[in-house]
Amino acid sequence: MEAYLDNSATTRCYEEVKDIVVKTMLEDYGNPSAMHLKGVEAENYVKQAAKEIAKTLKVQEKEIFFTSGGTESDNWAVIGTALANSRQGKHIITTPFEHAAVSAPLAWLEKQGYEITEIPVDEKGNLLLERLAETIREDTILVSTMYVNNEMGAVVPAEEIGRIIHEKNPKTLYHVDAVQGYGKYRIYPKKMGIDLLAVSGHKIHGPKGAGFLYINEKAKIQPLLLGGGQQKGMRSGTDNVPGIAGLGVAAKKIYENLEADTARMRELKTYLAAELEKMEQVEINGPEPEKGAPHILNVSFLGVRSEVLLHTLEDRQIYVSAGSACSSHKRAGSASLGALRLSPERKESAIRFSLCEFTTREELAYTLEVLREVLPMLRRYARR
Amino acid sequence: MEAYLDNSATTRCYEEVKDIVVKTMLEDYGNPSAMHLKGVEAENYVKQAAKEIAKTLKVQEKEIFFTSGGTESDNWAVIGTALANSRQGKHIITTPFEHAAVSAPLAWLEKQGYEITEIPVDEKGNLLLERLAETIREDTILVSTMYVNNEMGAVVPAEEIGRIIHEKNPKTLYHVDAVQGYGKYRIYPKKMGIDLLAVSGHKIHGPKGAGFLYINEKAKIQPLLLGGGQQKGMRSGTDNVPGIAGLGVAAKKIYENLEADTARMRELKTYLAAELEKMEQVEINGPEPEKGAPHILNVSFLGVRSEVLLHTLEDRQIYVSAGSACSSHKRAGSASLGALRLSPERKESAIRFSLCEFTTREELAYTLEVLREVLPMLRRYARR
Repeated sequence: MEAYLDNSATTRCYEEVKDIVVKTMLEDYGNPSAMHLKGVEAENYVKQAAKEIAKTLKVQEKEIFFTSGGTESDNWAVIGTALANSRQGKHIITTPFEHAAVSAPLAWLEKQGYEITEIPVDEKGNLLLERLAETIREDTILVSTMYVNNEMGAVVPAEEIGRIIHEKNPKTLYHVDAVQGYGKYRIYPKKMGIDLLAVSGHKIHGPKGAGFLYINEKAKIQPLLLGGGQQKGMRSGTDNVPGIAGLGVAAKKIYENLEADTARMRELKTYLAAELEKMEQVEINGPEPEKGAPHILNVSFLGVRSEVLLHTLEDRQIYVSAGSACSSHKRAGSASLGALRLSPERKESAIRFSLCEFTTREELAYTLEVLREVLPMLRRYARR
Repeated sequence: MEAYLDNSATTRCYEEVKDIVVKTMLEDYGNPSAMHLKGVEAENYVKQAAKEIAKTLKVQEKEIFFTSGGTESDNWAVIGTALANSRQGKHIITTPFEHAAVSAPLAWLEKQGYEITEIPVDEKGNLLLERLAETIREDTILVSTMYVNNEMGAVVPAEEIGRIIHEKNPKTLYHVDAVQGYGKYRIYPKKMGIDLLAVSGHKIHGPKGAGFLYINEKAKIQPLLLGGGQQKGMRSGTDNVPGIAGLGVAAKKIYENLEADTARMRELKTYLAAELEKMEQVEINGPEPEKGAPHILNVSFLGVRSEVLLHTLEDRQIYVSAGSACSSHKRAGSASLGALRLSPERKESAIRFSLCEFTTREELAYTLEVLREVLPMLRRYARR
C-alpha cells in the first residue's frame, strides 16, 4: 500500500488538467501574442482560465495575472508594491511564520532601506491582532500574511486583518499568500479587504510552473518581469498556455465540491489526530485539529528525529514531510515552528501530514498501523 | 492545406516532450525539494535535464539554471549582473535590435542610474564591431547581444564579440540572448567567451513556461526570485519538473540531427526567397537568405500592409508574423527593422516567415501559390 501524505508539498495533477495541457502542447499550440487564428485560439485558453479563476474569487477577469507559480506571485506582490509605493512610505508589516517566498523578498527590501515589522503570535500560532492596529502607520504601504500556514495549518483571520488595516489606513495594501488556502477555503478578496492574493497551481492538482496573482484594479504595483508587454504590460514573457489552461481547469474543479471535499478531509484529519493522541509521547503542534486547515496536521513524535521517522515511513511507501518541503535547504529549521517557541525536542521530531481530496481512510489506517509498529523500535534505537 | 510558418513565435511540442510532461504530472509528480523517495525521483528529472542541456553547450551541469522562459532568463541575466556588479561599474553595452526581454530591463536599469550604450549597425543588420572595442571601458560590467535576431534572422558574431570584450576588459561579462539561436547553431559558451546564455523551451519544440540561463561559474550575479532557495539559492520556487524535463528532452532531440535539419531548413528558406524574388515589388530584409539564420526570412511585399497580408494568408491556413509576435503590443513597430533604417513603406509591409524541422517544401509551394494569387488583388485594392 502507498500513502501519499505530502500534498502540501505538491499534488498529483487532475486527469482533466493533463488533457488540456496535452491539447495545448500538440494541437492548439499557438503563441497568444500572434495576430493570426492560431494566436487567437491560444489566447482564448488564457481568457477562459482567467474567467474561471475570477469566478472562484468573485473578482474581475482583468484582475488575474498569470505567473510561473507561488514564489513569483509572492515576490511580485511584495517587491512590486514596495517599489511602486515608496513615495508614500517604506513601512511593511508581516508575521513571523511567512513562507520564504514572502520573507526572503522582505529581507531584501529591508536591505534597500524598507522597515519591516512582525506581528507577534501566541504558542498556538494565533496572531495577536490587538497589536496589529497600533503597528499600522501613515507610512505603512503593505501588510503581508499567509492565509493558511504551510507547516502547521494555522488559519489567519484574513477578513479581520483586512478590516483592521483599511480602517486604520485606507492606503495600506493587504497581500495574502494563499498558496495553502486557495482550494481549501472560499476566499473573496473584495469582501475580505485583500488587495493582492498569490496562488500556486501545483498545490491544487494543477501544473507546476503556473500560478497567479490577483491584483485589485486600484492597487499600485510595478511589474517584476519586463519585456514584450504580455498581460497588459504587467507580466512579460510568452504566456504559458498549457500551464495557464491547466491552472484554470484545476481551479474550477477544486471548487466544484469544495464543502464536501474539505469536510471529508477534516474528518480524516481529525481521525488521524485522535488516533495519534492515543499514542504515548505524541504532541500535536499548532492549532487544534478541529480548527486549523482541513488538510494539514503537524505532529511531534518525541524521542524520534523527524528525518529518521520520515525515511522509515518512506520505506513503507508512506510519504510525509519534516518541516516544510517547499524549502530545498532540506535540513533548514522550520520558520513556523520557530515562531511558536516550541521546545527543541518537539521541533526536531515534528512531522507534517498533508491530505488532499483523494486521501482515503485506508491510507491513514495503514499509516497508523506502521507508526504503532516502528515508533517503539525507533525510540529504543534512539536511546542507545 | 495548412502551412504553419510562425515557428519563431512558438513551435509545436515534440511527442517525446508531451510523454515526459504527462509522466511527471501523473506518475512521478513529487516535489524535488521533498526529502523522501518521491522527491528524489522528481529531482532526478531535473538533474537529467541539466545534464542533457549542459552536454549540448559543453558546459557543466551546475552552470544550468532553470527559469520560466526566455524573458525571465534575459531579465535575470541583465538585472542580476547589473545589481551584483554595480561597485565595479554601471556601464552596459547592447545593440539597437534586442528583444524587449533585454531592452526593457536595460531601460529600467537606465532609470536606476546605469549607462547604456548601443553598438551601431549597418543597413543589413551587421553590428559595426570596430566600434565595439572603443566602447568598452573600465566600468563596463556587461555586454548583451542576441545570437540570432528574432525578426530578420541576422546572426551576431558572438565568438568575435566575446573575444573583443575579454581582450579589452576581462571583468566585463557577456550575455547572449540565444532564444532564436539555440537549437539552430552549436553554441559553446566556454570557447566563445559567453558568460550568460538565455534559452526558451517553446522555440525548440519544448514546453512553454520553461527555459534556462547558463551562468559561467565565475560570473557574479544576484538571484531574481527569492524564497525557498531552490537551484542552489539562485532561483527559488518549486522546480517546474514537467517543464524542465520536457525542455531537457527537446534540447537533446533538437541537437541530434542538427546539421541535417538546419541544412534542409536553409535549402527550403533559400527556395522560398528565390521564388519570392522572382515576384515584383518584393524586397528581402536583413541578411542575404544564404547567410542569416536557417529558419527566418523577412520580406516586404511593397504596397500591401503586413496586417492585411497576414490575415489574407490566415484565411488560407497560412500562418506568418508581422514584425515580432513575441510582442503582445500587436501593432507596435519593429525594433529590428527600425534599427535598419528601412523606408516606412518597406517596414509597414514586412512579413516574417519562420520555419522548423517539420516544415515541408509542399507548405512553401502552397504559400507561394497563394501569394501569387492574392498579391495583385491586394495591391489593386490598396491603390483605390
